[in-house]
Amino acid sequence: MKHAFTEEQVRNVARGLDLAGVEYFEVSHGDGLGGSSLQYGLSVVDEMKLISAAREECKQAKISVLLLPGIGIREDLEKAVDAGADMVRVATHVTEADVAKQHIELGRELGLKTVGFLMMAHMAPIGKLVEQAQLFESYGAEVVYAVDSAGALLPHEVKERIGAMRKNLSCDIGFHGHNNLSLAMANTMAAIEEGATYVDGSLRCLGAGSGNTQTEVMVAVLDRLGYETGVELYPVMDVANKVVAEFMPRPQEITGSSLIMGYSGVYSSFLLHTEAAAKKFGVDERDILVELGKRKAVGGQEDLILEVASAIATNK
Amino acid sequence: MKHAFTEEQVRNVARGLDLAGVEYFEVSHGDGLGGSSLQYGLSVVDEMKLISAAREECKQAKISVLLLPGIGIREDLEKAVDAGADMVRVATHVTEADVAKQHIELGRELGLKTVGFLMMAHMAPIGKLVEQAQLFESYGAEVVYAVDSAGALLPHEVKERIGAMRKNLSCDIGFHGHNNLSLAMANTMAAIEEGATYVDGSLRCLGAGSGNTQTEVMVAVLDRLGYETGVELYPVMDVANKVVAEFMPRPQEITGSSLIMGYSGVYSSFLLHTEAAAKKFGVDERDILVELGKRKAVGGQEDLILEVASAIATNK
Repeated sequence: MKHAFTEEQVRNVARGLDLAGVEYFEVSHGDGLGGSSLQYGLSVVDEMKLISAAREECKQAKISVLLLPGIGIREDLEKAVDAGADMVRVATHVTEADVAKQHIELGRELGLKTVGFLMMAHMAPIGKLVEQAQLFESYGAEVVYAVDSAGALLPHEVKERIGAMRKNLSCDIGFHGHNNLSLAMANTMAAIEEGATYVDGSLRCLGAGSGNTQTEVMVAVLDRLGYETGVELYPVMDVANKVVAEFMPRPQEITGSSLIMGYSGVYSSFLLHTEAAAKKFGVDERDILVELGKRKAVGGQEDLILEVASAIATNK
Repeated sequence: MKHAFTEEQVRNVARGLDLAGVEYFEVSHGDGLGGSSLQYGLSVVDEMKLISAAREECKQAKISVLLLPGIGIREDLEKAVDAGADMVRVATHVTEADVAKQHIELGRELGLKTVGFLMMAHMAPIGKLVEQAQLFESYGAEVVYAVDSAGALLPHEVKERIGAMRKNLSCDIGFHGHNNLSLAMANTMAAIEEGATYVDGSLRCLGAGSGNTQTEVMVAVLDRLGYETGVELYPVMDVANKVVAEFMPRPQEITGSSLIMGYSGVYSSFLLHTEAAAKKFGVDERDILVELGKRKAVGGQEDLILEVASAIATNK
């Protein structure tokens, strides 16, 4: 959406989700509170205004905000609470939970439901993931998520990860999936089977890459499996198909770039740079991404792209 | 596609699939050989011409055709063989395999790889499905498929079905999934785990309802799982994204009607009639479809729609 949600759109979605019985939904810039900037993209409407608008529409639903240490600051979170936020999800790379200690503590201090959100969970060995989740728990997080940011995990890998977290933590466990390998729903089911009690979705899959687990479909599947989600199927379908589908800028499909993201495990911020490097060195950009995935490149290491492209060109 | 494939489109797809290493692909009217008619929709290009064109493009890939008893006849299949078909898939409702005896025998007589295709496999109890699959095998089918036509099966249900077929049949087992519940990939993986050795896909999901298991994504997932499919990832991605995506009339998403199809287990031919009945009786069409699913309505029982709509209106 390029941070272009209008207040009316947010109100309509919030009202629909609230009516359907959804317990929590998130209102934030894509890069979290304070993300509206030249670097990350300016929000068309200030996020605090959107949070207030969503709050006004809700009879029962609670509002979550996203906070990335280094982008959002204390004042942002305090303002979000004033605007009506009930939950904060503090997100770090899977190996960097230690940068979030003060943010988790702040969330608790402000009386928020406080969540640790470990992104790119496929990049760490299971022991490391558990260690980082335990850090979050030790700071006071009430829920810790494994986040499959690149849509790279397979269901058995989700089971191993969520199972290990469930075994080694006392707090609640969450899972956030992306659909790059057409496995978001399967991975969400795998997470629930292993004890995750917080799972994320997006209406009509709207989200980065190939989007997320499709909320209204998840409600149908969980109903068929006998779980009581508290969410009613027809109302949640209606907000997906009559509200969100109407303003989506493009359909959410699994295209070439989103597939290779899931296959290589590389995050989307590399895609543009890779395309340029592929042209420059006359190599297939997919080979670059797959090699970056093998080298476990992370955001900030964009320099590696040229090095890898050059190496592939030399070895051709 | 409303039976509107051009010869050029078929050539480009055939060449791409052949190059990628796909072993079989299907060229047929959506209702099988002989389907081009006022009732089922006229093909823009005669299917025999499309089969010949596809055949000319292939160095290694083999061509399958679909045959529905009651629509396609002996002459159609003979012509298809002359045009270059190597495989026939004889499709019946899951409880109606006995209408296909002569068609399976004809396939074998003509030297084709001969497949029994049990549609709407979610509608029969497992024992019935196995019994019908055994009928197909007894007629001479070399492969028998469980076909999840409505995209209604959950992974554990696929496992139970394919597992039971594998245990009770000697021939090869196949699975054909649809994505109405966002589970086509998960169901295909479940089928393979239980011994299915033939699995279907469509490039960019192009297919009825929410489409099928996405072929190029399946190649990536199976590679990640360590299976050797013989299909190369980049070439199959290229035919999906540079050929098929270019002529798809609409993106393949999970919309309201396709979701309710998977949730209720009712086939798509009911959708239009249901919409009209819902308006007439002032009820939610989804309630009609869910009730039809409970009553296990099948194609041909469209009369039931008004009866169900009326009953819902009365009980409101």
